[in-house]
Amino acid sequence: AAHGARKMEGYGRFLALLASALLVGFVSVILSLVWVFHYRQGLSWDGSSREFNWHPVLIITGFVFIQGIAIIVYRLPWTWKCSKLLMKFIHAGLNTIAMILAIVSMVAVFDFHNAQNTPNMYSLHSWIGLAAVIFYSLQLFLGFAVFLLPFAPVHLRAALMPIHVYSGLTIFATVIATALMGITEKLIFALNSPGYSESPPEAILVNCLGLLLVIFGSLILWMASRPHWKRPPEENAKILTPTGATPEGTEVESTMTNSSNADKSDLRSNTEAARKQNTKFDEAGQRSTM
Amino acid sequence: AAHGARKMEGYGRFLALLASALLVGFVSVILSLVWVFHYRQGLSWDGSSREFNWHPVLIITGFVFIQGIAIIVYRLPWTWKCSKLLMKFIHAGLNTIAMILAIVSMVAVFDFHNAQNTPNMYSLHSWIGLAAVIFYSLQLFLGFAVFLLPFAPVHLRAALMPIHVYSGLTIFATVIATALMGITEKLIFALNSPGYSESPPEAILVNCLGLLLVIFGSLILWMASRPHWKRPPEENAKILTPTGATPEGTEVESTMTNSSNADKSDLRSNTEAARKQNTKFDEAGQRSTM
Repeated sequence: AAHGARKMEGYGRFLALLASALLVGFVSVILSLVWVFHYRQGLSWDGSSREFNWHPVLIITGFVFIQGIAIIVYRLPWTWKCSKLLMKFIHAGLNTIAMILAIVSMVAVFDFHNAQNTPNMYSLHSWIGLAAVIFYSLQLFLGFAVFLLPFAPVHLRAALMPIHVYSGLTIFATVIATALMGITEKLIFALNSPGYSESPPEAILVNCLGLLLVIFGSLILWMASRPHWKRPPEENAKILTPTGATPEGTEVESTMTNSSNADKSDLRSNTEAARKQNTKFDEAGQRSTM
Repeated sequence: AAHGARKMEGYGRFLALLASALLVGFVSVILSLVWVFHYRQGLSWDGSSREFNWHPVLIITGFVFIQGIAIIVYRLPWTWKCSKLLMKFIHAGLNTIAMILAIVSMVAVFDFHNAQNTPNMYSLHSWIGLAAVIFYSLQLFLGFAVFLLPFAPVHLRAALMPIHVYSGLTIFATVIATALMGITEKLIFALNSPGYSESPPEAILVNCLGLLLVIFGSLILWMASRPHWKRPPEENAKILTPTGATPEGTEVESTMTNSSNADKSDLRSNTEAARKQNTKFDEAGQRSTM
């Protein structure tokens, strides 16, 4: 029965939601570029407002879109035949790219503020945004140390996984909230005759961008929180690993030579306890509880 | 074994988190009052900015604090002996109060804008805020029709419950994000010599209020998404209800005369299938999947 679990329930709906999320995320990146190039003099790195413009572009590309994809990457059913370790590298890699882009985008703002003698870190946007970057970096570091490096014992992984999932989704939502505050600030500051309250085309365009960010976030959170769209638990050779060892730490290829091509009934009784133990840890520790 | 489930796992931690959430929510309401009375000339209903001031106070009190409590009200372990129906009334009642306060707070802004000849509905804050109120009202109406009225069949409830939970948490997060945008707008508009960027005491106070809203939201989301803090499934007389009927729709008192004071072994074999069916629906439909 276990090998039947590789097929995803509601595959069509998942694909439709994934396509929607990719489309909404892609259009958001495009709109940020239209905003910056059509209305705000484009990009450069010279202390002018064109240096500031890197901030929305890199945040929306990296900290929203790439982070969103990183969150759901385990749920893509065609990756379920790939090893868990490979997927962890992809998850960590995408999050690392997002973190680097977020940091560069912050440097652009500090640089711009300093060149213009504008104070730094006075707004609620800056407070929550900096907190989000710090927590995101911490999350990445802890995730690397606990779930990617082979040292953490399985019970620690199991205990920390729900916290990792919750923190990841909460930071993601906070990042989107911070982007909405940033859009609000920038439109109020940048629009003059006509001002923001007169709804010029730029205001409408960027308000729509903000709405798309909320829709993107909602789609990712839905996909990430459906229990039946989780990556199925591992069912490879490590099922025989004695209790207390770290099966996924030493994980090699999840070769997935399925139980269908061998009669395993002789194994079953011997390894029932180990299997249950593994499944339990896998349920608790390796997969989302949200 | 089933009646042992009434005791909450990690009760102390739950209480500590609940106390923190209540404290943070309470301090947020107080800070909104300090903001309005100490820095912004208090409250009235006269078209002046003192009418606007109802907006942050009512949003933080109703749409953030009361909504947050409504979300976790099923998880308070001392309510587990109360009937599910009573808890549904409390959940719906708190959400209704929150909706009314949110609508009154919106009327205050429209009234203020109209008196000052300021355009309505031009900002991202107003777009997402109005969408949140509309979705919230829809959620309340659908929740009432499907989960409180006794007409919806159990399979419809089971199918809609994960959507209800997801929508509720997503709307709650969106409301907090909208409040942060509102704080950003108001501080930029209201602070002049010293402006927002000069960090006067009012700016610091209200930034701290924004931070508290994020912390409050994070605490509620954590408590609402721990599977072991769910209200246990019902185990009353309705366990005998035939498959397809709506046990919780016609639910009376969950009197909870526990299985410990009667030998139910004679019942057990007869009702095993019904129990499994009920538990399955209860798991899928009556309890959070996030």
